[in-house]
Amino acid sequence: MVAAARRLFRQRGYVATAFSDVLEASEAPRGSVYFHFPGGKEELGVEVALLHLAELIAEVNRAALRARTPAELIEAFVDASRRGLVASDYREGCAVAPIIIETTPDSAQLTAVTSRGVRDIVATLAARLTEKGVPADAATPLAVATVAGTQGALIVARSLRDDSPFDAVRDALAAQATAALPSPAD
Amino acid sequence: MVAAARRLFRQRGYVATAFSDVLEASEAPRGSVYFHFPGGKEELGVEVALLHLAELIAEVNRAALRARTPAELIEAFVDASRRGLVASDYREGCAVAPIIIETTPDSAQLTAVTSRGVRDIVATLAARLTEKGVPADAATPLAVATVAGTQGALIVARSLRDDSPFDAVRDALAAQATAALPSPAD
Repeated sequence: MVAAARRLFRQRGYVATAFSDVLEASEAPRGSVYFHFPGGKEELGVEVALLHLAELIAEVNRAALRARTPAELIEAFVDASRRGLVASDYREGCAVAPIIIETTPDSAQLTAVTSRGVRDIVATLAARLTEKGVPADAATPLAVATVAGTQGALIVARSLRDDSPFDAVRDALAAQATAALPSPAD
Repeated sequence: MVAAARRLFRQRGYVATAFSDVLEASEAPRGSVYFHFPGGKEELGVEVALLHLAELIAEVNRAALRARTPAELIEAFVDASRRGLVASDYREGCAVAPIIIETTPDSAQLTAVTSRGVRDIVATLAARLTEKGVPADAATPLAVATVAGTQGALIVARSLRDDSPFDAVRDALAAQATAALPSPAD
């Protein structure tokens, strides 16, 4: 049910996704809603956010395993988001962005979960950038800009039905990552 | 009514904004909905998108009037979005991003209006960057990255309740803009 809800959040957001849609998409029995989500739809939103955010952190670490440089790490992270959007024929964006846009700060619980998740992704990406040689004071702004740029590229690319925004964001951030490296003479 | 709806879209998105909320916020008489928006909520969404997108284009041109360099133009555009979010105490993001996230491609009408709007903003920003010396082949990717980065900064800053994502995005893009200028030796 969480996987089915996540896909619906990516397609149309949190508010427009009804439990009845999730049941239909997941073929789960109706009674299971009350069993698994006694806290109602907000609890479903929390579970989708936790799942999606955890996968994004895994994506950072997967990208870090392959990348030799900070620029390659950023490129791999941006391209992972691109693949998800293109594979869905420009129908499925981020599952967490709509929760933020639709419920921050009105839902204290969803706001807390998504805010912590964004913080965690930025911290993980900044740590991996630092391991690849980016000075600590440059790593956090670079990680924040990468997470923001990727989120924005998901929206703009979906709207334009064209993946060039990922190239534009990726190239700007990769150049910034390379510029942040200490020069060989230092 | 369009202004009231726009504020609600910025706070909670398109789907969660009911006509009854718009009526309450605008103190318009109930009958006016059917008079002004015979096409229903989708027509309200179109009007909000057109208003918001037109103001973003004005913001590009306002920033271009003041800026002496491409980097200053990008900084002014990013900071205009920052001001709107901070002035609302991190409650009001973009009015058009939720429409894209919630209705692309399911609503053909809203998808067409928002997609054209994104294209127009990118084209306008690219034109102003070119006027300030950015070569034409670099201006469009830089404009796309700026629009995407600003959208992403609105989401990440709102989630973190902190405006540093605007600094991170702004600095990366301004550096990219400066690097795109022909060197003085050319």
